[in-house]
Amino acid sequence: MSTSIATHPDRLLPADPGTREIARNLLARVQDLPIISPHGHVDATVIEQNTPFPDPAALLVTPDHYVTRLIHASGVSMEQLQPQNAGAREIWRTFCRSWPLFEGTASGYWLRTQFQSVFGLHEELSAETADASFDAISARLAEPGFRPRELFKDFNIEVLATTDDPLDDLSSHKELAHDPSFHGRVLPTFRPDAYINIAHPSWGTNVERLIAAAGDGATGYGGYIAALENRRRYFVEHGAVSADHGVRTPATLKLDPADAEALFERARSGKASFEDREVFEAHMTYQMARMSVEDGLVMTIHPGSFRNHHTPTFEAFGADTGHDIPFAVNYTEGIRPLLQDFGTAKDFHLVLFTLDETVFSRELAPLAGFYPSVYLGAPWWFLDAPDAMLRFRSAVTETAGFSRSSGFIDDTRAFCSIPARHGASRRVEASFLARLVAEHRISEDRAHEVIVDVVDSAPRRVFKL
Amino acid sequence: MSTSIATHPDRLLPADPGTREIARNLLARVQDLPIISPHGHVDATVIEQNTPFPDPAALLVTPDHYVTRLIHASGVSMEQLQPQNAGAREIWRTFCRSWPLFEGTASGYWLRTQFQSVFGLHEELSAETADASFDAISARLAEPGFRPRELFKDFNIEVLATTDDPLDDLSSHKELAHDPSFHGRVLPTFRPDAYINIAHPSWGTNVERLIAAAGDGATGYGGYIAALENRRRYFVEHGAVSADHGVRTPATLKLDPADAEALFERARSGKASFEDREVFEAHMTYQMARMSVEDGLVMTIHPGSFRNHHTPTFEAFGADTGHDIPFAVNYTEGIRPLLQDFGTAKDFHLVLFTLDETVFSRELAPLAGFYPSVYLGAPWWFLDAPDAMLRFRSAVTETAGFSRSSGFIDDTRAFCSIPARHGASRRVEASFLARLVAEHRISEDRAHEVIVDVVDSAPRRVFKL
Amino acid sequence: MSTSIATHPDRLLPADPGTREIARNLLARVQDLPIISPHGHVDATVIEQNTPFPDPAALLVTPDHYVTRLIHASGVSMEQLQPQNAGAREIWRTFCRSWPLFEGTASGYWLRTQFQSVFGLHEELSAETADASFDAISARLAEPGFRPRELFKDFNIEVLATTDDPLDDLSSHKELAHDPSFHGRVLPTFRPDAYINIAHPSWGTNVERLIAAAGDGATGYGGYIAALENRRRYFVEHGAVSADHGVRTPATLKLDPADAEALFERARSGKASFEDREVFEAHMTYQMARMSVEDGLVMTIHPGSFRNHHTPTFEAFGADTGHDIPFAVNYTEGIRPLLQDFGTAKDFHLVLFTLDETVFSRELAPLAGFYPSVYLGAPWWFLDAPDAMLRFRSAVTETAGFSRSSGFIDDTRAFCSIPARHGASRRVEASFLARLVAEHRISEDRAHEVIVDVVDSAPRRVFKL
Repeated sequence: MSTSIATHPDRLLPADPGTREIARNLLARVQDLPIISPHGHVDATVIEQNTPFPDPAALLVTPDHYVTRLIHASGVSMEQLQPQNAGAREIWRTFCRSWPLFEGTASGYWLRTQFQSVFGLHEELSAETADASFDAISARLAEPGFRPRELFKDFNIEVLATTDDPLDDLSSHKELAHDPSFHGRVLPTFRPDAYINIAHPSWGTNVERLIAAAGDGATGYGGYIAALENRRRYFVEHGAVSADHGVRTPATLKLDPADAEALFERARSGKASFEDREVFEAHMTYQMARMSVEDGLVMTIHPGSFRNHHTPTFEAFGADTGHDIPFAVNYTEGIRPLLQDFGTAKDFHLVLFTLDETVFSRELAPLAGFYPSVYLGAPWWFLDAPDAMLRFRSAVTETAGFSRSSGFIDDTRAFCSIPARHGASRRVEASFLARLVAEHRISEDRAHEVIVDVVDSAPRRVFKL
Repeated sequence: MSTSIATHPDRLLPADPGTREIARNLLARVQDLPIISPHGHVDATVIEQNTPFPDPAALLVTPDHYVTRLIHASGVSMEQLQPQNAGAREIWRTFCRSWPLFEGTASGYWLRTQFQSVFGLHEELSAETADASFDAISARLAEPGFRPRELFKDFNIEVLATTDDPLDDLSSHKELAHDPSFHGRVLPTFRPDAYINIAHPSWGTNVERLIAAAGDGATGYGGYIAALENRRRYFVEHGAVSADHGVRTPATLKLDPADAEALFERARSGKASFEDREVFEAHMTYQMARMSVEDGLVMTIHPGSFRNHHTPTFEAFGADTGHDIPFAVNYTEGIRPLLQDFGTAKDFHLVLFTLDETVFSRELAPLAGFYPSVYLGAPWWFLDAPDAMLRFRSAVTETAGFSRSSGFIDDTRAFCSIPARHGASRRVEASFLARLVAEHRISEDRAHEVIVDVVDSAPRRVFKL
Repeated sequence: MSTSIATHPDRLLPADPGTREIARNLLARVQDLPIISPHGHVDATVIEQNTPFPDPAALLVTPDHYVTRLIHASGVSMEQLQPQNAGAREIWRTFCRSWPLFEGTASGYWLRTQFQSVFGLHEELSAETADASFDAISARLAEPGFRPRELFKDFNIEVLATTDDPLDDLSSHKELAHDPSFHGRVLPTFRPDAYINIAHPSWGTNVERLIAAAGDGATGYGGYIAALENRRRYFVEHGAVSADHGVRTPATLKLDPADAEALFERARSGKASFEDREVFEAHMTYQMARMSVEDGLVMTIHPGSFRNHHTPTFEAFGADTGHDIPFAVNYTEGIRPLLQDFGTAKDFHLVLFTLDETVFSRELAPLAGFYPSVYLGAPWWFLDAPDAMLRFRSAVTETAGFSRSSGFIDDTRAFCSIPARHGASRRVEASFLARLVAEHRISEDRAHEVIVDVVDSAPRRVFKL
C-alpha cells in the first residue's frame, strides 16, 4: 500500500461531502475529550508498577486473540504463534506476512492507527519491512517515555476500569489510588464468573477458597452467598463501580433458597448436569442483581458466546484463544425474572450487551426504552467495528433515543489500542449524527449536545463515575 | 434547539444531492394524495360525536405509550404520569423537560411534526416554554375548527379503519355512514383477541357473553364458533374489510373438532395450561383464516409481542402501558398449516406483520413472493420509523418486489399524528426508490408509477377498499 | 418505461459521485476477467450436445422458480404456467404482463440485463410488445451462434461446475474434457442429498441402487458408506472439485457406527421418525466431512430451506416450484461436532452458506475467522441480490476480512443469466470497496488488489481450481 491512510483526518467519516462536513464539526467537539473506559481487561499491576512493555510480538500479536485468530484461519498453526516455539522476531514476521488479512477489519483499523499514532511508523506493514518495523517498535518500547503511566497520560485517559477476580486483594488499585504522582483513576471491576459457572474447570476449588476467605465462618450455600456479598463490598470500598457477568445466556431465575442450596451442593459434589449449570447461572444472575440493588454496583451482562468452541485448541492452548463463537440469545424472556423484581429498583443500573445483533431492535431497545434500570451496552467484541456500530445506532435509536446507551466500552487487553478504539467510536457517533442532521431529523445544535452526552456524560452517568 | 426543523421540505430525504433531487420529485407525486388508513386504533365515537379534544397532556402524552415509556425509562414514575395524580399542566411540564429524550426517535419526529403542522408551534419544546406551549395548544384545542371531523377533512383522510370488540354494536360507524354531512369512510375492524386468548383475564366472561349474544342458541364450542361467524358477518354488513389478530406467535394448527371442543371446555373450566393457550390460539388463527376465506374479511396478523412484561406495572396501571417487548418468531413453520389449506384460496388476503426484523428477508418476503394470499405488512410499532422502514424495503424488495406490500398502516390511537405518520412513510418510500433510480436499478418513470401504487393503490387493493 | 437502463455503465454503483468514481475504477479492473462458476445447476449434457435453446418461455420463464413464483403470487395459477397447458407464446404474454412485478428484484435485474446484452432487445418488456419480444428472442435463439458452446465462449466462462447425482456416469463431462474443440472446463459436483435425506420420496430406491452399483459387494450400512466413498472417488477422477449438501439444518453428529447402522436399517424398513431423519442427516454431514478430508473434495453446505412448503403445489407440480421457504439456523452449535474433528484438518475446505442473514455477523464470520477450513459462502438464493450482498459484506468483513470468502457462486439453472449474475456481483464488490476507500478505511491500491482477489483468486483458491 503506497499511501498512509490511518491518520487521514476524515477516516471513518461518511463519503457524502455535505454529511462529512457536518461530521467533521461534530467530531471536533469530542475528539479531545478525556477517555473514560468503564470496562476493559488491562492489568492494574502493569500500570502500578509501570512495567515496560515487552517486545512488539508480545505486545501486539500473541496476547490478542482478535489478531491470532485470523492468522490461524489463514493456515498458520497455533504452535507457530506461541512465544515458546517461535522467537518474537519470527512471530512478528509471520504477522507482517499476514497483515493483508486485516484489510477491512476492526483490528486492522486499530493496529494501523496504533502503528502511526503511537509508534510513529510511516509505512504500511509488509513482509519486506518486517524486521525494520520490529526494530522501530522495539526502539520505541525502550524509550523511557513509553511506559504505561506515561502513555496513560499521553492517551488522556481519565478513568480506566480493570476486570478482577473476586479474591484479588486489589493492592495495585490501592497503590495507584494513594500515589500522589498518578493522576488517573484505575478502578477494579468485580467479575465472579469462575465462581458461578459450575462447568468452569476450577469452580470447585474457587468456591472453597471463596468461602474460606470471606464466608463469615459459614460453610455451604449460605457462606457462598455471604462471601460474594463481602467481596463485592470490598470492591466497592476500593473504588469499584461495576460488576461484570460473562454468562452463557441472559436467562435469570429466582430459585427457592432450599432449591438453590441443593443445586449448589450437587455441583459441589461434582454431580451437576448441563441443565443444572444453566439453572444455577440463571439463579446467580438474579442474585447478582439483588446484590447490585443493595450495594450499588452497576451490573453489566455479556452473554451469548460459546466459549472454547474447538476443544483440541482449548486443550492445547487454553481459553481466550480465538474460538469463542456467538449464538442467538433471548433477552425478552430470559432477563424477565430479574426485571420483574429489580427493573424499576432505585439507582439500579443494568447494562445489557449482545453479540447477537438481532436483539438490538427487537429486544434491547424496547427494554431500555421502558425500564429505568436498563441501558444499552455499546456494540461489543465482533460488533465493536464501524459498520456494526452504525447498525447498532440505526437499530436502537428510533425506539430508545440516545439517552439509554452506556457510552463506549473498549473491553480491551491491548493498552496501546485504547485511543484508537475510542477514536473510532467517536468518529462513528459523529457519522451517525451527521446523517440525521443531513436528513433534517435532528438540528445541528442538538446533535452537538448529543455527541458530548454520548461520548462523555453517558459513561459517567451510567457507570456512576 | 435554535432552528425549527420539522417542516423542512427535505426532512427524511437522502443526503446525497442527486438522490435527494430524485426523491423530491417522487415525493411531490404522492404528497397530496388522500390518506388511506386501513388499520388503527382511533375511537369511532370520538369522530361520530365530534368530541372536542382534551387538554394537551391527555391528548398527546398520557394515552401514548410510545411517549410515556421513554419518560418512564428516564426515571419518572408511572404515578407521576397519571392524570389522577398530577394535573394536566404538571404532566405537560414533565413531558417538556423530557423532550430531549425523543431526539432521533420516531415518536419525536411525529410529535415535532404535529407541533408545527397541526398546532402551529414555532419553537422547540423545552422546560422553559412548557407553560407557553401548553397554553398555545390548549387555545388551539378550543377552536371550533379543531374538532375531529374538521381535522379528518383537513388531514385529507379518505378511509379510517378502527379496531373494535366483536360485540360492539358499531353504532358510531352506522351513524357516520349515514350522516350526509360526513364524507369520510370510517370502517370497523373485527378484533377477537380477548375472545380467543384463554389467558386473557376476562376470556371466560367474554366467551359467555359472546355465545349468549350470537351463538344461535347453541352453547359450548359450537355456539362459540357460530357466534364468531355471526359477529364477523355483522361487521361485514357494517363496512368492515378486515379482521385483526394480535396473537402471541404466528403458530397455526388445524385441530380435530372434538379436540378443539375438549380444549375449549378445559379452558372454560379454568384448567387450561400455558400449552393449551398456545394450541388453542393456533387453532383459532386457523379457524379465523377459514372464516376469512368464507366471508372475505382481510386477515391481519400481529404476533411476537410479550405483552405486559413488567407485572408490577401491569397490576398497577393495566395493559398498553409501554412494556410490551418483542421476541423472535417463526413464520415459516408456524403459518404453514394455515397456508397449506388457504394459501392459494381465491380472494383470501393475509397480511403478515412482525416486530422481529429477521423474518423480513428470511421468511416473509419468500412467503409473499409465492403465496397469492400473503402480503407483507408495513413495518409496525417499534419498526414504524424511518431507518427501520428503509431496512424493511431493502430486506424484502429484492425477493418480493413492490407488489406484495400492504401499503402503510399507522396503527395509531393518536389521531393528530396520522398525517405525520403517513407523511413519514411517503418520504421514506421516496427515499428508497430514489436510491434505486440513482443506482440505475429502476427507471425514474417506473419509480413514479411504483410510488403511487405503494402509497395509494396497494392499500385499496390489499384491503379491498 | 421509456428509458433503457440495463446497460447503463454505472448500474448498481453507489450514488455519491466521489464514491462512484472510485467504484468505476475498481469495476474496470475486474469487469473483463473470465467467469469462474464453481457451483451451479446447468446441465452438462446441454453443453456437450450443444443443444439449441428452446423457445423464450421454456428458456426464461417456466424452468425458473424465481420467476414463476412471483407471477404465481400475483394470482396466475401454476396451471397457466405449465407448457402442457399453455403455449409458449401464451406463457410469454403472461410473463410480459407480469413484468412490472419484477421491478426492484434481483430476477428483474438479471432478466433485463439478459434481454439487452444477450438478446439485443432495446425496449422494456410490456404486454403490448409481448409478441414482438417473443419473436425477437425466438429469432436470436435460432441463430447458429446462439448455441450453448458459442455462448460459453462469448460469456468468457472459464470454469463451470454442474451439480450431479452420485450415480451419474458423467459421460457428458468426459466428452467435454476430451473434446479438443471445447476450451472451457465443465466440472461435475457430487450432490448426494437424495441418498442421505431419508424423508426423500425415493430415498429407499436410491440407496438400493447406490449399494448395488458401488457397494463393493457389501450390503447394509457398510455398503452404503463404501458406495458413497467410491462414487466420490469416481467424481474426483472425472474432475469434480466439490461435494454439495442441501441439508435441512447445519446440525452435525458423530454417531457410533452401530447406532448409525441401526438407524440406517430402521429407515430402510420405512420406520424412521422425523427425529431419525434429523439425526441421520447430521451424522451423514459429519461423514461427508470425513470423506472430504480424505479425498480432497471441497465441502459446501446449503441448509435452512423448508422445501416444498405448500404440499398441494408440490403434489401437483413437483419440487423446485417456488415454495422453498427459509427458516432460522444455528451454525455455532450445529456444525461444532464436525469442526471439533475436522476444523483444522489439512487442506479441508468447508464453504458455509445461509439463507438466514442473522448468522453472517453472529456465527459465520467468527467461525471463518478462526477455523482454517471454514469459508464464507457467497450470499445465496434470496440473498443473491445487490442490497443483500452489501449487507453480507458489511456483516462479515469487519470480523473476517476479505480472505475468508468463497467468491461469487451463481447457483443457477439459467445459463443465459450467468454473465448478468457475475456482473452484478462484481459491481457490488466494487461498490462496497469504494465506500471503504471513500471512508479512508482501505487504500485505493489495496482495494484494487482485493477486488481481483475476491473475484478471481478466491474461487480458484477455495475450490482448488
